[in-house]
Amino acid sequence: MTATTTSTNASTGTTATGKIVLGDNQYGKAEVRLVKVTRDTARHSIEDLNVTSQLRGDFDAAHTAGDNGHVVATDTQKNTVYGFARDGVGAPEEFLLRLAKHFTGEFDWVSGGRWAAEKYSWDRISVDGQEHDHSFVKGGTEVRNTVVTVAGDTTTVISGLSDLTVLKSTGSEFHGFPRDRFTTLPEATDRILATSVAARWRYTSTDVDFDGVYDDVRRLLLEAFASNHSYALQQTLFQMGEAVLEAHPEIEEIRFSMPNKHHFLVDLGPFELDNPGEVFYAADRPYGLIEATVQREGTTPSAAWEGIAGFC
Amino acid sequence: MTATTTSTNASTGTTATGKIVLGDNQYGKAEVRLVKVTRDTARHSIEDLNVTSQLRGDFDAAHTAGDNGHVVATDTQKNTVYGFARDGVGAPEEFLLRLAKHFTGEFDWVSGGRWAAEKYSWDRISVDGQEHDHSFVKGGTEVRNTVVTVAGDTTTVISGLSDLTVLKSTGSEFHGFPRDRFTTLPEATDRILATSVAARWRYTSTDVDFDGVYDDVRRLLLEAFASNHSYALQQTLFQMGEAVLEAHPEIEEIRFSMPNKHHFLVDLGPFELDNPGEVFYAADRPYGLIEATVQREGTTPSAAWEGIAGFC
Amino acid sequence: MTATTTSTNASTGTTATGKIVLGDNQYGKAEVRLVKVTRDTARHSIEDLNVTSQLRGDFDAAHTAGDNGHVVATDTQKNTVYGFARDGVGAPEEFLLRLAKHFTGEFDWVSGGRWAAEKYSWDRISVDGQEHDHSFVKGGTEVRNTVVTVAGDTTTVISGLSDLTVLKSTGSEFHGFPRDRFTTLPEATDRILATSVAARWRYTSTDVDFDGVYDDVRRLLLEAFASNHSYALQQTLFQMGEAVLEAHPEIEEIRFSMPNKHHFLVDLGPFELDNPGEVFYAADRPYGLIEATVQREGTTPSAAWEGIAGFC
Amino acid sequence: MTATTTSTNASTGTTATGKIVLGDNQYGKAEVRLVKVTRDTARHSIEDLNVTSQLRGDFDAAHTAGDNGHVVATDTQKNTVYGFARDGVGAPEEFLLRLAKHFTGEFDWVSGGRWAAEKYSWDRISVDGQEHDHSFVKGGTEVRNTVVTVAGDTTTVISGLSDLTVLKSTGSEFHGFPRDRFTTLPEATDRILATSVAARWRYTSTDVDFDGVYDDVRRLLLEAFASNHSYALQQTLFQMGEAVLEAHPEIEEIRFSMPNKHHFLVDLGPFELDNPGEVFYAADRPYGLIEATVQREGTTPSAAWEGIAGFC
Repeated sequence: MTATTTSTNASTGTTATGKIVLGDNQYGKAEVRLVKVTRDTARHSIEDLNVTSQLRGDFDAAHTAGDNGHVVATDTQKNTVYGFARDGVGAPEEFLLRLAKHFTGEFDWVSGGRWAAEKYSWDRISVDGQEHDHSFVKGGTEVRNTVVTVAGDTTTVISGLSDLTVLKSTGSEFHGFPRDRFTTLPEATDRILATSVAARWRYTSTDVDFDGVYDDVRRLLLEAFASNHSYALQQTLFQMGEAVLEAHPEIEEIRFSMPNKHHFLVDLGPFELDNPGEVFYAADRPYGLIEATVQREGTTPSAAWEGIAGFC
Repeated sequence: MTATTTSTNASTGTTATGKIVLGDNQYGKAEVRLVKVTRDTARHSIEDLNVTSQLRGDFDAAHTAGDNGHVVATDTQKNTVYGFARDGVGAPEEFLLRLAKHFTGEFDWVSGGRWAAEKYSWDRISVDGQEHDHSFVKGGTEVRNTVVTVAGDTTTVISGLSDLTVLKSTGSEFHGFPRDRFTTLPEATDRILATSVAARWRYTSTDVDFDGVYDDVRRLLLEAFASNHSYALQQTLFQMGEAVLEAHPEIEEIRFSMPNKHHFLVDLGPFELDNPGEVFYAADRPYGLIEATVQREGTTPSAAWEGIAGFC
Repeated sequence: MTATTTSTNASTGTTATGKIVLGDNQYGKAEVRLVKVTRDTARHSIEDLNVTSQLRGDFDAAHTAGDNGHVVATDTQKNTVYGFARDGVGAPEEFLLRLAKHFTGEFDWVSGGRWAAEKYSWDRISVDGQEHDHSFVKGGTEVRNTVVTVAGDTTTVISGLSDLTVLKSTGSEFHGFPRDRFTTLPEATDRILATSVAARWRYTSTDVDFDGVYDDVRRLLLEAFASNHSYALQQTLFQMGEAVLEAHPEIEEIRFSMPNKHHFLVDLGPFELDNPGEVFYAADRPYGLIEATVQREGTTPSAAWEGIAGFC
Repeated sequence: MTATTTSTNASTGTTATGKIVLGDNQYGKAEVRLVKVTRDTARHSIEDLNVTSQLRGDFDAAHTAGDNGHVVATDTQKNTVYGFARDGVGAPEEFLLRLAKHFTGEFDWVSGGRWAAEKYSWDRISVDGQEHDHSFVKGGTEVRNTVVTVAGDTTTVISGLSDLTVLKSTGSEFHGFPRDRFTTLPEATDRILATSVAARWRYTSTDVDFDGVYDDVRRLLLEAFASNHSYALQQTLFQMGEAVLEAHPEIEEIRFSMPNKHHFLVDLGPFELDNPGEVFYAADRPYGLIEATVQREGTTPSAAWEGIAGFC
């Protein structure tokens, strides 16, 4: 094959360094925006999700010969998401497990896949102190995530949250770090600590009260951030992970990616003003980036982390 | 430790299911925006990068005890990026290799790390048909990426590009796919094929003409996309990878993440108009997402892919 | 002047159609990120703002001759924002009024300007049911805005909010619209109504309890959206504006820019499923866009609206 | 009406300060993504637009009574965009003029409106040095804009561009500015000057070679930025505007909004390195913001600028 040849049968080429072959692959429909209204009674509820479905299996012919005999159309995957929602959604983990079972059961050549969802929160609007039956206002900035991975007989659920932005106006220090030629940072005994928590935790099972655990993990993360005096964002991260693993035996490990969102004390000296921890400049870039896994000793690594951006 | 206790010495907790320990971790400074002007002559050149430095090694004490004795400050990492740029930047791969060598050599407990860069292109402004000496206009939308990973004695360079958006107004078909209960998509013998190419390729060595190879890979990707009639985006992806691996023995594998940016033919029938492939609606979401690796047979898997979003 | 001439004294050119002159202009520092911590007691409070300062006046020489004698540096404007914050911020309207008074009073040639702020909300983190003294979590998605404009002796305050996203799962209809050759939309007697409210209201005075009014306007907007059955988003918009003007005589007019965020009922018929208002596709683009002013009869137009994107 | 009342006939309320009425309003469909393929010959061309249609006129009943008898559905407006594209698009200005004429002619109560478009550039992919017939790669980052406004008998065309990012590595100074208590900025005799040009120009007529003028204005802006030594970004802005007005009598005025994208020289002194204009930190926020109109003396102000974000 040369670059200028139009060909429908790409024979795999060879070079001095070896035959060229297809490696790992997956495909599907990404970001299927699904809003489900449950209206059994006058008091409606809504579920607002962004769903991605990706299949893995024997798709060699599509890649090497343009033969789509195995290619379940991404449009079909989208339709399936909407069709399955007709029976209700429930915990996003449960919804993805249903999709996973369907695709791996329906098509012989689909040996696994990856199904992901983001869920956005909505609160009821209050009118005269009463929660309204069918009117909602978008909730906080954080997003609930989940990824279900199937590889042969193994099904793994990794859930999490992102964009949970927190800040402590005191109770944070940073000192004792090594100094070299390029070190100019002064030691700090009182600083603002701010981060946007992205966390993902791996369940040991698929038989979990996913909604209940999610709410409790969120609470534990916030409380651990708030309650612990911090000598390093690394330490705070570890304490947050520890709090989750101590309370939830159904979680095997938890991974964090936490930017250190710098708030720099402004030097007001030139204006003949002091600044005792009052006026800060919130910087965009660069930012510190702290990433770590907190896990149970001896846990088995899981390939399901692959493809989860920033966490593998 | 309970979540509400303020503690500076986080003893690792235990539960019925095992001791809680620190797993994989890395930290550093992300998105250090660096613009380097080379002004040896009146004809300046500029290099515009976004650099991230992350260290791996023995950072347990920071996590479990808030002891920062090993924590090379992220501010120091930022300073080092700027200090090293004083001697010139060059290919981003070379620049990151220099940073990697510095950090792993300077600090005993730093056993490895991950250094990443994005590079943005700039063209010279033409004035009266002459390229200006020191005035530039931002180039195309695509971004050049590279990640250098050091793990013990192994140094891996993975480079790539993202946001290279391409479109074919014909020469693309999609049919022969399986049909089930949820399939409504009609077969297409002529459609628009559009994608935003994200590709990453792993080098077999650190001794490469990185700038030269980058330019040639970009050219090959564009030519393979343009020249090959497409029966599936999967096929086009594979042809693009093949073209690269055939021409570049110094590349071991190439991974793609390519959205199928749907362009739907608008039904003008209700307005008594035909639409022979002329008027399209460019949709945002959902979109197809095709991901695959094209590699040399028998290549050894590399852990350096971990943490490269969408490619591991 | 020709394009290739380097010149420091741009004499204003002339053409057949008239002398070329400087028209309206303003300049300053945009998006000064300010976080103010108030720590008089152990119970801290934080204020998180994004401030823009722009001056108007006699800046002709800078434009036509590169003479900066009147150009209060944008860096100086930034410093002033931080310096003024040392005494406390308070309502963003009050803070901007202080800045406006300073700049127009300090420099003879500054005859006016435009000062704008966005304010982000933070909630206290709860620990064991108690609000924490110095730990916060970012609040809802909406942003509080204000613009203070000074033109000679006239000072105008226009405040508002944006990104207040709301949804009704029923209580919305749309029918009775005219039909022409291009109309295919069916009439709807029950649909989802969703929008992201952007609203700005003009105060009749600068002597207002700005924080109190803001909270009440936000409440009124949410209640009016929730409580009124909707026959058109235009009608809902007008009801929201009416509710605000009825309750707040200190507000002269209120302007809205509200996208109709379409939620399309998915046709599940091909899968042999009904869909009685349960499963929706939330579309990104295109979207309806409804913009209107609700005002008191006979109100005098205000030039302060100029430059407020989407509202003038 | 109280906020908690559900009402379909919003009678306009009254307060001590006057009857509440509907003010200026417009509505329509925003961001209709249109890709037009012209395939008369084997050498295709593509046009890629984002179109917004907004109607003005008598829409009172929709707002005050939920009566949609005059509400040309936004869906109908979208369909009309696609239907009109069947005959070809051409210059975006011409396309919007056709839409404007249609809507104001078709519906008695539509007295005017605002039609806007963004156009994205695509280049042909080169294969073996030859431009490909039907394969394209997305062009530079800048966007071509146009807004057509109709108010009664007056039709106004305002065109422009945005996100044209330019940088000079020398040939820029900034000094001579006033110093007060808050001034700390040192004077600069050599600095990087970088901005992202947003410009809009108003045509005196609708009978213009819009594509030709656009290309020439873009060229003039780039050349004026490159060629003129700068003592202030204000001066550079004025020179850019002057170059356009001198060459194009069909343009009455041009407005600019240009951020001063700061590139700060990094202090390498602590590392015992000099930095003679070589290593810069490209900052995100805050940024300078310079906005001005360059116009012909005695030009009549135009209301068509209203609603063009950042330019009115």
